[in-house]
Amino acid sequence: MAEGGGGPVVRTVLQQCLRARLQVEPAEENREARFVQIDRGMVIYICFLKGATEHILPKMVSTLLNLRLCEGGSGRLVSVSELPGSLLIVPQATLGGRAKGRAVQYHTNISKEDGLRLYGAFVSLCEQQLLAAAGAAASAQVTVEHGTYGNRQVLQLDTNGPYTHLMEF
Amino acid sequence: MAEGGGGPVVRTVLQQCLRARLQVEPAEENREARFVQIDRGMVIYICFLKGATEHILPKMVSTLLNLRLCEGGSGRLVSVSELPGSLLIVPQATLGGRAKGRAVQYHTNISKEDGLRLYGAFVSLCEQQLLAAAGAAASAQVTVEHGTYGNRQVLQLDTNGPYTHLMEF
Repeated sequence: MAEGGGGPVVRTVLQQCLRARLQVEPAEENREARFVQIDRGMVIYICFLKGATEHILPKMVSTLLNLRLCEGGSGRLVSVSELPGSLLIVPQATLGGRAKGRAVQYHTNISKEDGLRLYGAFVSLCEQQLLAAAGAAASAQVTVEHGTYGNRQVLQLDTNGPYTHLMEF
Repeated sequence: MAEGGGGPVVRTVLQQCLRARLQVEPAEENREARFVQIDRGMVIYICFLKGATEHILPKMVSTLLNLRLCEGGSGRLVSVSELPGSLLIVPQATLGGRAKGRAVQYHTNISKEDGLRLYGAFVSLCEQQLLAAAGAAASAQVTVEHGTYGNRQVLQLDTNGPYTHLMEF
């Protein structure tokens, strides 16, 4: 699903969760750390690579929200939109790593400025599309939460099977 | 790092953890579920794809155990062997999935029989190599734990940042 000729420009890893909790602000002298949390839903770890642009986002969000990756009530697979489940989006620059000897290099990662811009746009689009889908699904209590780009992603995950998937775009 | 001409034959996703707990036997009528647990270390999610053979395992284990992916004491990156940390190995057939429309197909996954055999050999080799390295590192309390191939992988993960990496062989 990579664009054009070269390699992928966005790498995502997806995990199903019963609950996931992520630090969005570290503790400081006079302030406790701040966390966000989702219950049933999907964690999206995301890394933008060189060549990624805004153009890829609508198709990408549509794919991620509509792929049948989640266990529905009867064991049937449904999408996170259909579940309906929440999203926790975790910026994860390490996903762009390539082994060179014993070290890992990140030369194909996008610049921090472009990564931050694309990350913000990706989160907004997920919010719009998931909440629109959930609106249709009536009583749904779904949310989109996300980590702070560039921070340490202190994460706790509780799953009934993570069903880890790799999706590249 | 894929072998030969084609695509990868093994896909792994790596996450750092402070603690990870995995169900290895589900609850039954007269028996509670059984779990394994590691403290500080690395979770390896692994999926063997068509074309994978035993020949790839030694290089793969050596790479995974010696890549500098873990935060050492001074913030310096060290390998899980050097940390020294424990391993939790999670069989994860979903990593072989490819999107086709809204469904996910697993046509490139290896057969269950071959996957089970390679998984067992991979776990054994990790045990040998990590414990040998830890022996050298004196007082280390490291273990290799692993999930039951083919079962639901009920997982709880507690991280100080998962630093998710994708490594394909």
